[in-house]
Amino acid sequence: MEKSKIQSEQSILTSESFLKHWQAHRRLTRKVIQEFPEDKLFSFSIGGMRPFSELAKEMIEMAGSGLHGVVTGKWVKYGELEQYAHNREPKSKNELLTLWDEITVQIDTLWPKIPSGRFEEVDVAFGQYEGTITSFIFYFIDNEVHHRGQGYVYLRALGIAPPLFWERD
Amino acid sequence: MEKSKIQSEQSILTSESFLKHWQAHRRLTRKVIQEFPEDKLFSFSIGGMRPFSELAKEMIEMAGSGLHGVVTGKWVKYGELEQYAHNREPKSKNELLTLWDEITVQIDTLWPKIPSGRFEEVDVAFGQYEGTITSFIFYFIDNEVHHRGQGYVYLRALGIAPPLFWERD
Repeated sequence: MEKSKIQSEQSILTSESFLKHWQAHRRLTRKVIQEFPEDKLFSFSIGGMRPFSELAKEMIEMAGSGLHGVVTGKWVKYGELEQYAHNREPKSKNELLTLWDEITVQIDTLWPKIPSGRFEEVDVAFGQYEGTITSFIFYFIDNEVHHRGQGYVYLRALGIAPPLFWERD
Repeated sequence: MEKSKIQSEQSILTSESFLKHWQAHRRLTRKVIQEFPEDKLFSFSIGGMRPFSELAKEMIEMAGSGLHGVVTGKWVKYGELEQYAHNREPKSKNELLTLWDEITVQIDTLWPKIPSGRFEEVDVAFGQYEGTITSFIFYFIDNEVHHRGQGYVYLRALGIAPPLFWERD
């Protein structure tokens, strides 16, 4: 019992490795966006689901406004964040990738500003979802992995081999 | 700089919350298995991909043999682990769910046996993949989320509404 208690309090992830883990996933997702033919990216769908461009935009919005909330404690919708105002509706693959890359830089810039001790704090994301900051970041990543997996099916249905899941460099 | 350095060494996840996170994902995946009609679970496919039963079996095998490796440092293929010999090839939804539930118990049983300090150790999973133990467990979870997302597309293509992504109780 004692051992188990000690283990449960043990640190098993640092902020630095958490950031690396997320950005590695984001590099893979970027490759998936790239694999789509331009028109299919914005139109192809299975079973009434959204095209992959919309799923990628959701990831972008969640990362952009989510990390802003993590750092500042202010949960503002992506569309209301001034820094993203110039590129809210990417209309081509290139515009989508450009926006993706902006968010990559934003994440790297904002991450070190997450206040010490913040990860364990309980907050209410977007005034709606209660949890720790770590749980929110897990959600951003898991949501991306979930939708990217759907993108893999779209690519397969289009006869395109998706990138290898474990290649994230 | 100093603040950033301190933050990067900060604990942001405990072993206990990591286990909870994984089991919450596994509860959602179990719901996805349940949603499939019996025959479609073992046969339905898009773009030459595996049916969801095979994806679920991969998750089961990765969790079963992977956690065994995490705890013991011995990386043995699932098919060679004696404790799973009785149910290696589930042939019905019920058999698959029974096996799923066995792994759920196995994970809860083995997890507290992960030696203190083990999470940060570098090992070579299955003699092939080098990384920290934490990175391996991330891989087990991410692989599950990835393939479960594909199961969502299968369900949608079959006209079935998948469970809500954020409901994991």
